[in-house]
Amino acid sequence: MELPEKTRFSEWFNELIFTAEIMDVRYPVKGIYVWMPFGFKLRRKVYDYLRSLLDRDHEEVLFPLLIPEHEFMKEAEHIRGFEDEVYWVTHGGLEELDVKLALRPTSETAIYPIFNLWIRTHADLPLKVYQIVNVFRYETKHTRPLIRLREVTSFKEAHTVHATMEEAENQVEKAVNLYREFFDTLGIPYLIFQRPEWDKFPGAVYTLAFDTIMPDGKTLQIGTVHNLGTNFAETFDIKFETPDGDHEYACQTCYGISERCIAALIAIHGDNSGLVLPFRFAPIQAVIIPVLFKGEGRERIMERAEEIKSELERRGWDVVIDDSELRPGAKYYRWELKGVPVRIEIGPSEVENNTLTVSFRNDKKKFEIEADKIHELTGMAMENDDRLREKSRRFMEERIRMCGSIEEAKEHAGKGVALFGWCGKTSCGEEIENRLESTLLGILKGGYNAESPGECVVCHENAPYVAGSARTY
Amino acid sequence: MELPEKTRFSEWFNELIFTAEIMDVRYPVKGIYVWMPFGFKLRRKVYDYLRSLLDRDHEEVLFPLLIPEHEFMKEAEHIRGFEDEVYWVTHGGLEELDVKLALRPTSETAIYPIFNLWIRTHADLPLKVYQIVNVFRYETKHTRPLIRLREVTSFKEAHTVHATMEEAENQVEKAVNLYREFFDTLGIPYLIFQRPEWDKFPGAVYTLAFDTIMPDGKTLQIGTVHNLGTNFAETFDIKFETPDGDHEYACQTCYGISERCIAALIAIHGDNSGLVLPFRFAPIQAVIIPVLFKGEGRERIMERAEEIKSELERRGWDVVIDDSELRPGAKYYRWELKGVPVRIEIGPSEVENNTLTVSFRNDKKKFEIEADKIHELTGMAMENDDRLREKSRRFMEERIRMCGSIEEAKEHAGKGVALFGWCGKTSCGEEIENRLESTLLGILKGGYNAESPGECVVCHENAPYVAGSARTY
Repeated sequence: MELPEKTRFSEWFNELIFTAEIMDVRYPVKGIYVWMPFGFKLRRKVYDYLRSLLDRDHEEVLFPLLIPEHEFMKEAEHIRGFEDEVYWVTHGGLEELDVKLALRPTSETAIYPIFNLWIRTHADLPLKVYQIVNVFRYETKHTRPLIRLREVTSFKEAHTVHATMEEAENQVEKAVNLYREFFDTLGIPYLIFQRPEWDKFPGAVYTLAFDTIMPDGKTLQIGTVHNLGTNFAETFDIKFETPDGDHEYACQTCYGISERCIAALIAIHGDNSGLVLPFRFAPIQAVIIPVLFKGEGRERIMERAEEIKSELERRGWDVVIDDSELRPGAKYYRWELKGVPVRIEIGPSEVENNTLTVSFRNDKKKFEIEADKIHELTGMAMENDDRLREKSRRFMEERIRMCGSIEEAKEHAGKGVALFGWCGKTSCGEEIENRLESTLLGILKGGYNAESPGECVVCHENAPYVAGSARTY
Repeated sequence: MELPEKTRFSEWFNELIFTAEIMDVRYPVKGIYVWMPFGFKLRRKVYDYLRSLLDRDHEEVLFPLLIPEHEFMKEAEHIRGFEDEVYWVTHGGLEELDVKLALRPTSETAIYPIFNLWIRTHADLPLKVYQIVNVFRYETKHTRPLIRLREVTSFKEAHTVHATMEEAENQVEKAVNLYREFFDTLGIPYLIFQRPEWDKFPGAVYTLAFDTIMPDGKTLQIGTVHNLGTNFAETFDIKFETPDGDHEYACQTCYGISERCIAALIAIHGDNSGLVLPFRFAPIQAVIIPVLFKGEGRERIMERAEEIKSELERRGWDVVIDDSELRPGAKYYRWELKGVPVRIEIGPSEVENNTLTVSFRNDKKKFEIEADKIHELTGMAMENDDRLREKSRRFMEERIRMCGSIEEAKEHAGKGVALFGWCGKTSCGEEIENRLESTLLGILKGGYNAESPGECVVCHENAPYVAGSARTY
């Protein structure tokens, strides 16, 4: 029942997910979980926001889950990247299927045979679509709710098609900016890396990834943007007629975000008392607690509570009144656990003085405002979110260390992200991974300012890049 | 390219779905289709509305797709009902799974093992949840987009748990009323039948179903509401502690709607020119067509078109301006095909006289309004929808015949719904099905007023019920 301290991150996270009613972890298949009503409300608010960002210049579509084996097997690199973790449907009813069907681990091979039909001429380009779907990975490693799943329930994947490589590169930049806006609003700080060759998306020309640092110092990949060049276009014969009448392969990008964004939201803002949620995304944004004493104006207090609730709801807030029989302390505990950003207490003195006693979830300091100034609360809640963001940002930056030597980087391994100069050679990259027992995240591309110290941390030759490494989820 | 006449319903429907860009039917697996951007916008508007109805007193959740064989096999009747049409996942990567996993054909066996954990006491009841998910049926019959699918992409299923059978029955009534409101707003007329014993949901005590009559006279089941009694509760051991400290099995209901609601929306309102959509659900609610003549105030006309667009958008409309190079006739054709409810033409005389030339999609009659009265257009569009509803209602009622004899019913078979007296005996029901080469839809429970003629159409004994039959999808 008691939540472990956040310093015991793994236990804290697993316990919080369940007790705050985000996911039920007791579903009888490994790595597969149930979204509970409260968790689903959080998911809805986060994904409605993500959708609104994409709707600016993408169209939503819905492609099938089942991919026939022959399509799935067309792109050689792609299948090598996924063959160990694809679920296969082999039977329909009591019959064996003629063609095995893969549960999509991602949808390139479901979508691109249709892009082949949709794209005829340059006038059909650019094409930008997205979908929010469930995808499947037969994970053999340790699974964990929201982080490592066999059914990823909430995969937002966008797919774009362009006439030139330059336009595809521009789209990669736009996608990165869109993801920046998304994570900035959630208050999830990130580093952006170009993944090394051996860790890019199977079939991509290059992969950019957003990593955040979790409370235990390990990084979590929370978003990826891939430039596919013409690799898939050649496999699925996606060609367009140019204004000059030539036929050329199209250039493609794809980019994805999963429910790991919710995992990061919970992990990064939460504290020893439970969830801490930015105002905009909290399923319940305010709880009103009537402070009732026997015989002392119970009716007037409840009436006042209802008035305040209506007033806030008119402003678009999601509000509950907790008039249960619990002691005030138990009520505080319950709503703190659920990360309700604003708590409002109304007792006899508040009614008499026409005031409200308010506290925000993250600092828990009580203060009084005049009830007439209730319209100022939204702004205050927003400012409070800014402080939340600032705190998360600082937390991440404290866990990034620019390292002048491999020894220094080794000393920092497991504590966050080590940055260092890298020449770009695979052999030096492998040596870094081996000596640090870490993953080379790739070349730093954004989210943090750092200049290359000039020489590679391994070979001491010229290092044009700052690279990073960390233990990863 | 040319749409077949609606009298050739099957061809008309298949061609319209594709040319109006609702679904792409070229996905390389039988019975599995792609939601195109325009179709998905329609789906979003319809399902956002359905969601808003459920959100009044249900909570949204998300349960897994994959159901382990041992859970799926627990309820004997249920599995008999589905065993021929379940897809099975047997392999993960290159390994064979220890436990086969079913792709949910519906989610009772995924959800109820968790209800077993969620429900402890009477205070946990009633529980009302819903989810919108993809479900799978290995259909061996002829498949058809939106109607008979192997991947049902848009299954809204609600599941409720109650303390008593009476409360479960009340919930069935509430669900029926919710579905009435949904279909009434869509302008889809319906009959409500209690399905005969041999056609109820596998595992249910009884099933109520909404049937609509399609343009070819066949009925389409568009919604079902099931009272499960304690059948599943006994299988999954869903018990609660009563106020007296006893432990009792809970009573359950479930009810579902799939993308067949979109099929009905398209089939019922559409005409020889294409889609006809109620204003509220149309992805594009108005198209503005600038009528441009060479050199004649092109700029002013375009400016006016933009003003009108902004004005309508401020009122929440989805609007496009078609300033393409197409001839006016080709433009009309294009937007009629897509069911845009309101067309506004603006040429030199409209600019000069400060008027708009307006026509509605369903009657295509042009009329003029003063531009200052643009705020009246929303109301006019709503009234127009009422006429659409009324027309659909009449269409259905013309295809219902109360039949005094089996001969009369046989004469009506294939032309709509035949109603007649039924004693309720299975043997008479079977004889009706055989002689009419139709399906016995069950006992009429709503959507149409009819009194029993008093005697069974087969055995001529006392008939307490009006029953219906039809050829069905």
